[in-house]
Amino acid sequence: MGLIVLKFGGTSVGDVDRIRNVAAKVKREVDAGHKVAVVVSAMSGVTNQLVGYVDSIAPLPDAREYDVVVSTGEQVTIGLLALALQQLGVKARSFTSWQLPVRTNDAHGKARVDSIGTEELLAALNGGAVAVVPGFQGVSAEGRVTTLGRGGSDTSAVALAAALRADRCDIYTDVDGVYTTDPRITDKARKLPMVTYEEMLEMASLGSKVLQTRSVELAMNHGVRVQVLSTFSETLGSDLPGTLIVDEEEIMAKGLEQSVVSGIAYAKDDVKITVTGVADRPGVAAGLFGPLAQANINVDMIVQNVSLDGKSTDMTFTLPKADLPRAVAELEKARTTIGYQEVKTDTNVAKISVIGVGMRSHAGVALTMFETLAKRGINIEVISTSEIKISVLIEAEYTELAVRALHTAYGLDAA
Amino acid sequence: MGLIVLKFGGTSVGDVDRIRNVAAKVKREVDAGHKVAVVVSAMSGVTNQLVGYVDSIAPLPDAREYDVVVSTGEQVTIGLLALALQQLGVKARSFTSWQLPVRTNDAHGKARVDSIGTEELLAALNGGAVAVVPGFQGVSAEGRVTTLGRGGSDTSAVALAAALRADRCDIYTDVDGVYTTDPRITDKARKLPMVTYEEMLEMASLGSKVLQTRSVELAMNHGVRVQVLSTFSETLGSDLPGTLIVDEEEIMAKGLEQSVVSGIAYAKDDVKITVTGVADRPGVAAGLFGPLAQANINVDMIVQNVSLDGKSTDMTFTLPKADLPRAVAELEKARTTIGYQEVKTDTNVAKISVIGVGMRSHAGVALTMFETLAKRGINIEVISTSEIKISVLIEAEYTELAVRALHTAYGLDAA
Repeated sequence: MGLIVLKFGGTSVGDVDRIRNVAAKVKREVDAGHKVAVVVSAMSGVTNQLVGYVDSIAPLPDAREYDVVVSTGEQVTIGLLALALQQLGVKARSFTSWQLPVRTNDAHGKARVDSIGTEELLAALNGGAVAVVPGFQGVSAEGRVTTLGRGGSDTSAVALAAALRADRCDIYTDVDGVYTTDPRITDKARKLPMVTYEEMLEMASLGSKVLQTRSVELAMNHGVRVQVLSTFSETLGSDLPGTLIVDEEEIMAKGLEQSVVSGIAYAKDDVKITVTGVADRPGVAAGLFGPLAQANINVDMIVQNVSLDGKSTDMTFTLPKADLPRAVAELEKARTTIGYQEVKTDTNVAKISVIGVGMRSHAGVALTMFETLAKRGINIEVISTSEIKISVLIEAEYTELAVRALHTAYGLDAA
Repeated sequence: MGLIVLKFGGTSVGDVDRIRNVAAKVKREVDAGHKVAVVVSAMSGVTNQLVGYVDSIAPLPDAREYDVVVSTGEQVTIGLLALALQQLGVKARSFTSWQLPVRTNDAHGKARVDSIGTEELLAALNGGAVAVVPGFQGVSAEGRVTTLGRGGSDTSAVALAAALRADRCDIYTDVDGVYTTDPRITDKARKLPMVTYEEMLEMASLGSKVLQTRSVELAMNHGVRVQVLSTFSETLGSDLPGTLIVDEEEIMAKGLEQSVVSGIAYAKDDVKITVTGVADRPGVAAGLFGPLAQANINVDMIVQNVSLDGKSTDMTFTLPKADLPRAVAELEKARTTIGYQEVKTDTNVAKISVIGVGMRSHAGVALTMFETLAKRGINIEVISTSEIKISVLIEAEYTELAVRALHTAYGLDAA
């Protein structure tokens, strides 16, 4: 008995039959006595088609009009799901994001949710109805349509769960939970019953496609208990068949044995840039990264080589491949102010990360990583660490080998 | 120099290239110095696809959710057209119907426009921008999405033109104007340069598919000058290449010679019903038509046969074929209260109408019609007349013959 938010992605509502299937799932939660709000994506393929229309008309579209167009897919789904629920005898109504409203800032195409009006929605829930809400969108203070960016429906669901103080937010997707690593790389990957926000956050930002980073941040900040589970499983969501993403206390309270490392992530979407012959003096890093930051390019790993002559040095860093042309242009523009010899780029790299809150209390985690990779003859090009993760940049072709070796080394292999 | 509303239907915005073509047309009006608001339909096929989704989920859908789904097609078009205009260097922005807002009553699926908020839209126009607005939809007082019914975009355009006190409302479509009759029936049909609201209203309700009846009513009530013209013509709309629908005074002021009859319309979508053995006493018509009216079935032509025995009579009337099953069911239900022998139905009928404001001042118009049809051996089954039209019901197979004969008889043939 509680209030839960369910979120279904594009594949889960991909056609009329699947929408019916989703309605049946929602009905089971209602029958189990829960109040249910549902957040849905556009039917799979629809948003891409809409983006395709926009692209063929305007290669650099006005983001406000782009949002008007691409936000329509979810509106179709909310109406259809409400109808499918009604067909099953479940009271249901849709709410558009301007009806609630879902207020966002005005960063069109990548807006952030500021607040969600829940009055009418709660009245519907308390009246025994299921509320169906579109993901991915909102309205700005000016009253214009905004979208949250790709994958934004997860964020919509978590934000709604936070606004409703829901007991849980179930994110239905095409995988049945969060794994110790990508099961396509090793069949020894195990599904995690629970994982902390911090770990999930690292996994999301380090290449796991299960949840959008922003949605995990939001869940952490508001203490929203999130479950990732499969649309195609028959088990009732409230029986917790997926992976629960919660705070460390809840996991400790459950008395689950916590391994030092929870998962191994990898990402191949970064590029390595080396700027050679940079003056070895204070302020040069700011000179280099300032223009990139201003251009909204996110620099990730950074290493400054030891200066051999005490005068000049090399700076190596990574950033998303998609931003490479802009980054090179920015560096070119700032060449005289920075002063450097050459910009070398390497797209043939992968970032491998080991993640676990257990690292905080365990020494030697990094050593295990370095030794394991060294034993396979894998060269580490850049290292970066945080409290609960260690990432290394390696040659891309070693990705699978490295992931499998680390998965075994940290005792994550399934029995 | 003025304020004009342009409306483009689904075929006109059927794909990305056609949307670009529409943008170019709009730009020409802007370049000619006009302030322009544009009303658009969904890209052709889109609304049918959405209706198909709804049908396959819920054969008798909640009209509120139906409206949420089927109203999305126009929102796609407004964003795309705004972008296409911007690509041509024309300042443009879209307004959804809840942004304006377009207020309607809550008759979901066939709502009527109550009012349109024009403040923001006028600010955009006065700021030199083109405003792009979706047809076919609005919001109820409750704030829910409504649609105006099929063809409702014409009504949206005329309502917007009325609210803006626009100089003209140009309805772009796939025909280049209003014809004396359907050009597919006779190649002697002529395009009318001007036609009165009253005539257009009769033509629309009598089978001409050029404009939705409701939009003509609205134009007449608010004195909106409407032009029907082709999307595919190269002539600038402001040069009036189409048919202008205006009041009689404007036509008379132009000194155009007004023929007695302006057009011949036909419709094959009615069914003839004969109820036999009805008691010939006061109140029986009310007993018969009351249940139909309550079921929202529109009875059109009515004839009560002369009673031969002074006790019982036959009633013959027509109504839309689509309503036949419901009408028969209603009559069956009311059988004992009405008291009748039999209900006979005949779907093999056509209604042929001659229309013209000139009838008001000319006698003998009906006689010409009856004689012309008699000469061809065409039997008239029912007759109904109004101030400016005469309609007869005939056997469907004589439709083309009747239309061509009347077109000639009233002097409408092109030279």
